[in-house]
Amino acid sequence: MPLVVQKYGGTSVGDASRIRNVARRVAERKRSGDRVVVIVSAMGRTTDDLIRLSREVSDQHHPRELDMLLTAGERISMALLAMAIRDEGVEAMSLTGSQAGILTDTSHGQAKIRDIKAFRVEEGLEAGKVVIVAGFQGVSPDTHEITTLGRGGSDATAVAMAAALHADVCEIYTDVDGVFTADPRIVPGARKIDEITFEEMLEYASAGARVLMGRSVEFGMRFNVPIHVRSSFHDEPGTWVKEATMEQPIVSGVAHDTSTAKVTVRGVPDTPGVAASLFTPLAVEGVMVDMIVQNVSSEGATDISFTVPLELLDVARPIAEATARAIGAAGLDVDDQVGRVSIVGSGMRAHPGVAATMFSVLADAGINIAMISTSPIRVSCVIAASQVDEAVRRLHDAFITAEQVVAP
Amino acid sequence: MPLVVQKYGGTSVGDASRIRNVARRVAERKRSGDRVVVIVSAMGRTTDDLIRLSREVSDQHHPRELDMLLTAGERISMALLAMAIRDEGVEAMSLTGSQAGILTDTSHGQAKIRDIKAFRVEEGLEAGKVVIVAGFQGVSPDTHEITTLGRGGSDATAVAMAAALHADVCEIYTDVDGVFTADPRIVPGARKIDEITFEEMLEYASAGARVLMGRSVEFGMRFNVPIHVRSSFHDEPGTWVKEATMEQPIVSGVAHDTSTAKVTVRGVPDTPGVAASLFTPLAVEGVMVDMIVQNVSSEGATDISFTVPLELLDVARPIAEATARAIGAAGLDVDDQVGRVSIVGSGMRAHPGVAATMFSVLADAGINIAMISTSPIRVSCVIAASQVDEAVRRLHDAFITAEQVVAP
Repeated sequence: MPLVVQKYGGTSVGDASRIRNVARRVAERKRSGDRVVVIVSAMGRTTDDLIRLSREVSDQHHPRELDMLLTAGERISMALLAMAIRDEGVEAMSLTGSQAGILTDTSHGQAKIRDIKAFRVEEGLEAGKVVIVAGFQGVSPDTHEITTLGRGGSDATAVAMAAALHADVCEIYTDVDGVFTADPRIVPGARKIDEITFEEMLEYASAGARVLMGRSVEFGMRFNVPIHVRSSFHDEPGTWVKEATMEQPIVSGVAHDTSTAKVTVRGVPDTPGVAASLFTPLAVEGVMVDMIVQNVSSEGATDISFTVPLELLDVARPIAEATARAIGAAGLDVDDQVGRVSIVGSGMRAHPGVAATMFSVLADAGINIAMISTSPIRVSCVIAASQVDEAVRRLHDAFITAEQVVAP
Repeated sequence: MPLVVQKYGGTSVGDASRIRNVARRVAERKRSGDRVVVIVSAMGRTTDDLIRLSREVSDQHHPRELDMLLTAGERISMALLAMAIRDEGVEAMSLTGSQAGILTDTSHGQAKIRDIKAFRVEEGLEAGKVVIVAGFQGVSPDTHEITTLGRGGSDATAVAMAAALHADVCEIYTDVDGVFTADPRIVPGARKIDEITFEEMLEYASAGARVLMGRSVEFGMRFNVPIHVRSSFHDEPGTWVKEATMEQPIVSGVAHDTSTAKVTVRGVPDTPGVAASLFTPLAVEGVMVDMIVQNVSSEGATDISFTVPLELLDVARPIAEATARAIGAAGLDVDDQVGRVSIVGSGMRAHPGVAATMFSVLADAGINIAMISTSPIRVSCVIAASQVDEAVRRLHDAFITAEQVVAP
């Protein structure tokens, strides 16, 4: 019997009627003959509400207790979903992350999954039940403490559980139809991608696509779990994320991200260790630096620019300022009016002209490029935030709608 | 170092500012040199809100999942309280019922505490922390399932935990000042009782006093844990519930209960086994029958009357009707406009005239008695609901304000 792990996010279980909808869908799948494990997030705004409540009570940071608090959220949604599935005439039981054997490290608020001992999940499946598992949470076997997995945690739970159970597929239900060649709100002609490789999906995630976070894709890639990103509103297939099985298109899509800020440290003494002294303290505070560009050194000094997620700018700025002073840099510039556009495609490896074509397309549109970074299958440019939509449309026209322009 | 177990109910932790108030009180006590364990209920209406949500999702009964759902409530309040106590500069940690080692039977929704393995509580205390434990919840070691303890569950958690830890006192914080000689809303001259025996408190609880449920008192009695029922609004002492240490008053107080209904099965064939056939099905459905009176048999048939909690009348009525038909009874009368008044006092044992005095007091007030039941230290009368307040006042005047009238 095929085994499917399905993950439903907070919007899909946002109220009683949506929970009943999900229950009907799960029950149908179970009756069709599949074994079904469901990973569920907290209902709608529950997590935000709990965080707000904790701020009313305390203005300090209590990571252990915050995890204890937040894990109440999935407990509520999973119990309600189990009830609704049972009402559909299908046996179901809910398990907390701890009960489901999701073992993590000890890092509250951003724990990493170390192992899954899914005994109780397997028992439930053997008893013919749908097993519902709380997403986003686990337990540290070292400290016996409840932990949460941080952003994208429920997706990570789903893919890791699918890997542990050797599931046939991990289905991520979302409010979009799948992964698109570009954001359809910007490019009306964007089309859904039927199949994409793990590597490409990783690049999309790092390029700002919100549909599936990198950590889940990494699990899928490492344990070769096919991930099916699909809509929770209808039964049409979405996008399959899996190992490469065919010739890959040169460019599979255009991603963008406007929640980025650019920080430039000017006049950095060009001595060994200077980059480390800048980026180590940022890493310690959990600031993810996306792109780093170091300009050519002139007269013994250099400029270092990097991008950080906009929501971490308030954390990054004072660190960068302090470091800039400490290393004797000339100054610091911050630009929060920037965005990134990226093109992604496994076929790029064999087509070295792709980046150059991208730069021409942007230049023809009068769009100035502030920073560039590349991977073997992605090219990203930082540009003015106001020009991102136009850039996405131009790149989609050039690479997707009329793909022949990249032929060498 | 003295060890105190404190229990705060849902009202005491109803919002962020109340939680901070409780935290200040707990921190003060800890700084005064005591070791402190806090048992906490879910915030305000959280439990009711979760029950309502479950009814929106499902109209069926799912006891396991309901317990999973409801235990989210204390998880929220205990984590928030831990944060607030830590903000007061006192180390604190919260534990779920399961983490605190509260082991129960397998009965979802009304589990009984079987044992407490409070290793983690003791570890926390040894580390100098205030340990906060979720009330109302436990885990069944047989099924590894989360359970809830049903009504009065948080008080039971507190007293049982105090017993397990050999605490010096279990403090139950509530919105009243303690146990009173009568309800002060009815009898303005009612006074707080400073000290009362476990036995008397049990009788008060069974006579309808809401301040402390019988199951908690039983724990206290069995393990000899002094219970201090006191106000969460100020620091004045409340009522101590403990073993008898002095001469007891003949009547310590007057209790009443208007949430009672009286059911009479008329013309019951007076044959062996007939009472069992009536009360067994009620017990199976969890209907607590408070008082049972069987009238003198005439012509081979008898009337059986009993009282049930008003909120269980809808459950009890159809069962009683079906049984009445099955045993060939003449009919069924239900009266939901009744109440009980009771007098309680350990000194009654030595004063057989007390019941007679009570009946006279009621007769003098023109109050008709529908049913009577007695224990060695309590006399209860079922009367019309509309006359309960008057009866309480008259009895308080007769037995408490002017106690000499009961002298034989």
